[in-house]
Amino acid sequence: MKPVYDLIIIGSGPAGLGAAIYAQRAELKTLVIEKEMVSGGQVLTTYEVDNYAGLPGINGFDLGMKFREHADKLGAEFAEDQVVRIEPCEEQAEDGAQVRAAELSVSLKRVVGENDTYLAKTIILAAGANHRKLEVPGEERLTGMGVSYCATCDGAFFKNKTTAVVGGGDVAIEDAIFLARLCQKVYLIHRRDELRGAKSLQSRLMSMENVEILWNTVVESIDGENQVESLQLLNKKSGEKQTLPVDGVFIAVGITPNSEAYRGLVEMDGGGYLVAGEDGKTSVPGIFAAGDVRTKQLRQIVTAVADGANCVTSVERYLNGQ
Amino acid sequence: MKPVYDLIIIGSGPAGLGAAIYAQRAELKTLVIEKEMVSGGQVLTTYEVDNYAGLPGINGFDLGMKFREHADKLGAEFAEDQVVRIEPCEEQAEDGAQVRAAELSVSLKRVVGENDTYLAKTIILAAGANHRKLEVPGEERLTGMGVSYCATCDGAFFKNKTTAVVGGGDVAIEDAIFLARLCQKVYLIHRRDELRGAKSLQSRLMSMENVEILWNTVVESIDGENQVESLQLLNKKSGEKQTLPVDGVFIAVGITPNSEAYRGLVEMDGGGYLVAGEDGKTSVPGIFAAGDVRTKQLRQIVTAVADGANCVTSVERYLNGQ
Repeated sequence: MKPVYDLIIIGSGPAGLGAAIYAQRAELKTLVIEKEMVSGGQVLTTYEVDNYAGLPGINGFDLGMKFREHADKLGAEFAEDQVVRIEPCEEQAEDGAQVRAAELSVSLKRVVGENDTYLAKTIILAAGANHRKLEVPGEERLTGMGVSYCATCDGAFFKNKTTAVVGGGDVAIEDAIFLARLCQKVYLIHRRDELRGAKSLQSRLMSMENVEILWNTVVESIDGENQVESLQLLNKKSGEKQTLPVDGVFIAVGITPNSEAYRGLVEMDGGGYLVAGEDGKTSVPGIFAAGDVRTKQLRQIVTAVADGANCVTSVERYLNGQ
Repeated sequence: MKPVYDLIIIGSGPAGLGAAIYAQRAELKTLVIEKEMVSGGQVLTTYEVDNYAGLPGINGFDLGMKFREHADKLGAEFAEDQVVRIEPCEEQAEDGAQVRAAELSVSLKRVVGENDTYLAKTIILAAGANHRKLEVPGEERLTGMGVSYCATCDGAFFKNKTTAVVGGGDVAIEDAIFLARLCQKVYLIHRRDELRGAKSLQSRLMSMENVEILWNTVVESIDGENQVESLQLLNKKSGEKQTLPVDGVFIAVGITPNSEAYRGLVEMDGGGYLVAGEDGKTSVPGIFAAGDVRTKQLRQIVTAVADGANCVTSVERYLNGQ
């Protein structure tokens, strides 16, 4: 007979582990399902994290481990599995759970993974997101060594240095403006001959003296021994190649939320993010979204952990019939 | 000539310090104004914090210090002052700042404190809140030693123990339900003969076998040597007194946000909270609210720090003309 969890959390990055910590302290019968062998999500591959309050300058892997150890210390239960889909669980009344759930006016959900299936009264989707890659030589090898996907996270490490931003949307322009305040020189490298970002942002960008835009240009490789030293660029219009010396490169060509398994289950926006506010409520009662996978302004470690806490409060209210 | 800050943060609890960390890393010219000699806010007087991910079981004072040290390490500037009011700064063009602000289409604000005045392009209000006290003997002395104002924060320390909740609103009922899952026995002590909280919550509460409601009852004193041992109770209807042995007491009789200085400046709700969403935007462009002082679902350390980060993003967007 399968146990019925009060809460199943899918994903064990900062959002999932933040939720696990709050759920354990609330004595909710909770299971965390993680597809990887190691918890932590994107944090694990972050070279240094300097903006999680209280733990300045910590290595990303260490921070991920600290989050996991915290959840372990509180007795959180984990399963390694890749969730395939979530479905209502109307027919079965295993272990009388359906009856008890009905009394609470909550509907049971079945989480179907590659290895097993799991039953829960509530679910927090905290499956995270991935930054899109350029897919060029040097990118993966130098990630964390000058290659970054988040100016807010890593920009401060490049004070008074020369950096490049790759992209042409709002995020790329915001990143370039952000970096221009602290770097000596910022190149914005864009494959087209005009930017897609908001006009107000564009005019702010154009007013910054230390920003230079390289139009019609793509990055062919990121080079350097142990640290980014230069970019190999190609001007698609003129066919001209050049080597651009930089200390760091910020790649802002989009984010892919890990939400495919939930398409058709809960409402998504055009970018594939799960539509949910600060309280994590999705379009389906009893299913919540936390962290990078949900629609939100700022995707950071601390906002993900906070999402986890908020979602557990929403879970409790749902179980209380509110 | 007064300097013009990009950002003034009022308050240096988790929300204010969280904002300071993000603002420093964004190279915004920032000042943090704190009315107390020590930063940290309510965290400072918390005996143990076990739900800030990554730092399990930390002493509240130590956590407050860690937050402050983090902000100091990044070079944050602090002033000790009590803010009296905030006013627009239209007439003066000190240092040409007004002109530069106008170019950015932001309006300068003047922060008037008891000791000095300060000029800023944007402001984050992070002045926090205080839990209302019962104002009975023993309450202050035993705070953190069995007297708590937050079941979500401290409930887990009372596993399998006997606790009491004082109050009759939604928060008191939620606290009692929360505690009933983990405590052996929970008393709900209420001064009236009916609860004010939502009916759904009430029926959930009534269904919990280990909860006992003491109606028409007030706490006259909280007793114990180094730890809460009992409550002295008075039944206001019968005049009967009794000593109730408990291991902990959770006081849920309301919260007072520290928002009086901003009345008339930004929109407030009936409880005195500053109306703002996750992005911290108040009714006044360029003024943001973070942490316990704003309208929100869950007032916790991590949600306050996240608010600080979110507000800095909103500040940057405001300064970018977005």
